[in-house]
Amino acid sequence: MQAPIILTGDRPTGKLHIGHYVGSLRQRVEAQHHYRQFVMIADLQALTDNGHDPARVSGNVLEVMADYLAAGLDPAKTTFCLQSALPALPELTSYYLNLVSVARLERNPTVKAEIQQKGFERSLPAGFLVYPVSQAADITAFRATHVPVGEDQLPMLEQANEIVRRFNALVGREVLTECQPILSDTGRLPGIDGKAKMSKSLGNTIELGMSEEAIRQAVFAMYTDPNHLRVSDPGQVEGNTVFAYLDAFHPDKALVAEMKAHYRRGGLGDMRCKQLLNDCLQSLLAPMRARRQQALADRGELLRLLRQGTEQARIITAAVLAEVKDAMGLNCFP
Amino acid sequence: MQAPIILTGDRPTGKLHIGHYVGSLRQRVEAQHHYRQFVMIADLQALTDNGHDPARVSGNVLEVMADYLAAGLDPAKTTFCLQSALPALPELTSYYLNLVSVARLERNPTVKAEIQQKGFERSLPAGFLVYPVSQAADITAFRATHVPVGEDQLPMLEQANEIVRRFNALVGREVLTECQPILSDTGRLPGIDGKAKMSKSLGNTIELGMSEEAIRQAVFAMYTDPNHLRVSDPGQVEGNTVFAYLDAFHPDKALVAEMKAHYRRGGLGDMRCKQLLNDCLQSLLAPMRARRQQALADRGELLRLLRQGTEQARIITAAVLAEVKDAMGLNCFP
Repeated sequence: MQAPIILTGDRPTGKLHIGHYVGSLRQRVEAQHHYRQFVMIADLQALTDNGHDPARVSGNVLEVMADYLAAGLDPAKTTFCLQSALPALPELTSYYLNLVSVARLERNPTVKAEIQQKGFERSLPAGFLVYPVSQAADITAFRATHVPVGEDQLPMLEQANEIVRRFNALVGREVLTECQPILSDTGRLPGIDGKAKMSKSLGNTIELGMSEEAIRQAVFAMYTDPNHLRVSDPGQVEGNTVFAYLDAFHPDKALVAEMKAHYRRGGLGDMRCKQLLNDCLQSLLAPMRARRQQALADRGELLRLLRQGTEQARIITAAVLAEVKDAMGLNCFP
Repeated sequence: MQAPIILTGDRPTGKLHIGHYVGSLRQRVEAQHHYRQFVMIADLQALTDNGHDPARVSGNVLEVMADYLAAGLDPAKTTFCLQSALPALPELTSYYLNLVSVARLERNPTVKAEIQQKGFERSLPAGFLVYPVSQAADITAFRATHVPVGEDQLPMLEQANEIVRRFNALVGREVLTECQPILSDTGRLPGIDGKAKMSKSLGNTIELGMSEEAIRQAVFAMYTDPNHLRVSDPGQVEGNTVFAYLDAFHPDKALVAEMKAHYRRGGLGDMRCKQLLNDCLQSLLAPMRARRQQALADRGELLRLLRQGTEQARIITAAVLAEVKDAMGLNCFP
């Protein structure tokens, strides 16, 4: 039995926010104690839909590294690496691309949904169409056994495992390793405006490094129940962003349940709820902000940490590439 | 002005034959005296439509190297290299894929024709669809200024130059170099059976390393004018494979012109024409066969030559990749 290995990561297109914290960073902080964990800054993948704006990608690499340290990822337990500095990944991609049909890629539900969402249609960059193959390269290059994903990303893992089975069948032995998903049990955190998607471009996020004042403003501007006009009115908890956040962040579940009941029957004002949420977020984010500032005060050290992990990753991924090439007989210069 | 650089090569899917000699090898032997010339064994590209049979590709790498030496390419003048041993190429491909739309690739006339010819349709491997992008990576990674192609391959160079212009515009400076075609003035040599395409799978080729007896048999089995039954009959020169080959190979153009006239008016038998062609091919191929045998007698030396050229190519292509990454700001670990 192979020891479990997690591969996960983020596209460096902006600073990370509390949506990332709830959806993945928190789990990674926990997982780093139990798994060999690689966290990859996926700049190559970020370019597949930011090909026109590479500066947006390159400019966010160290921001994301700082966010990782801020969230509590520990370089002694988690290996950080930079995708574009791992040449084995595009090499593996180039081999895997021959094992997947264009029709199969076009059928990928995740890619289909994203193409629609991003409004690509005929201008779809080729890199975007083939990015599931590039993800298969990432996953297999680390021999990842576990990949944390949301439901919507499951087809990507299916595609990766299909390539694994196809390659192993082709060469007649188990060169590559299949992976399994770790499904997140938390739903997606809504934006502070109540919109389903939290995104920097919508300006509805709370970033990990936000100032105390900016957090306070965000919380007090938060979308609640628009029909809850007077404190005495009964209010709605469903679709109320403040309660969604309290559910996600407040450690005292009983207190939150009691407040929900109170809010529903009337007599609990939005301000009191927001005050509680503000206290909770401030105490969560204050140490993150401090760690983030500290990290960014020494960019050389941040870069050194990333480089150190990338060097480890380079050795691991190069070894898998060598096995793949060897299995195909393409090992002229071993 | 940049010194002219040629990039050319072959997909190692079989031994090279006299069709390759007429169409490209002969020109390369000449060009190596005037250009910096890189000849790449394109095993990655060969896999785009041989993904199911990597052994066919890997098994022909040294055969093709031997063919190169047989044809007269000189390792002191021409740099040989192996595509799969140049990691900068798939890396560049992964960046360029974001600059080309799927629709643009689907419109590529060369790819369209090849898809039809190979009967891919819905099973089209993704690697095959994107191979023009991979070729753009090859060409730009060597800063090739000149690429020898047939008419049917011109769209590939257009695609490469489009990527060059797009990338340079994106980063605001001339990082990549456009290339121009060197169009071959010789038409395609027909197979010995008179079919338009000479191919190993049709069994209608004369390989550079064929034995004297096999060449003789191939020449005497050659397709001529099926209506030229008696020596005294007038014969047709057009579509007559023996004359196509005499045009391609016989050094004495006046003699060939005279024979054509004689054949047309009647009185010249196929046997005499074939005898002349046989003499001509035997004297062309005898020294090639000898060099080929000598080359294959020391596979270690062949491999050493290929590795030595590949090392040079690796330095050159890595430098171009570094410039490309630098221009995009993706140079965290320079």
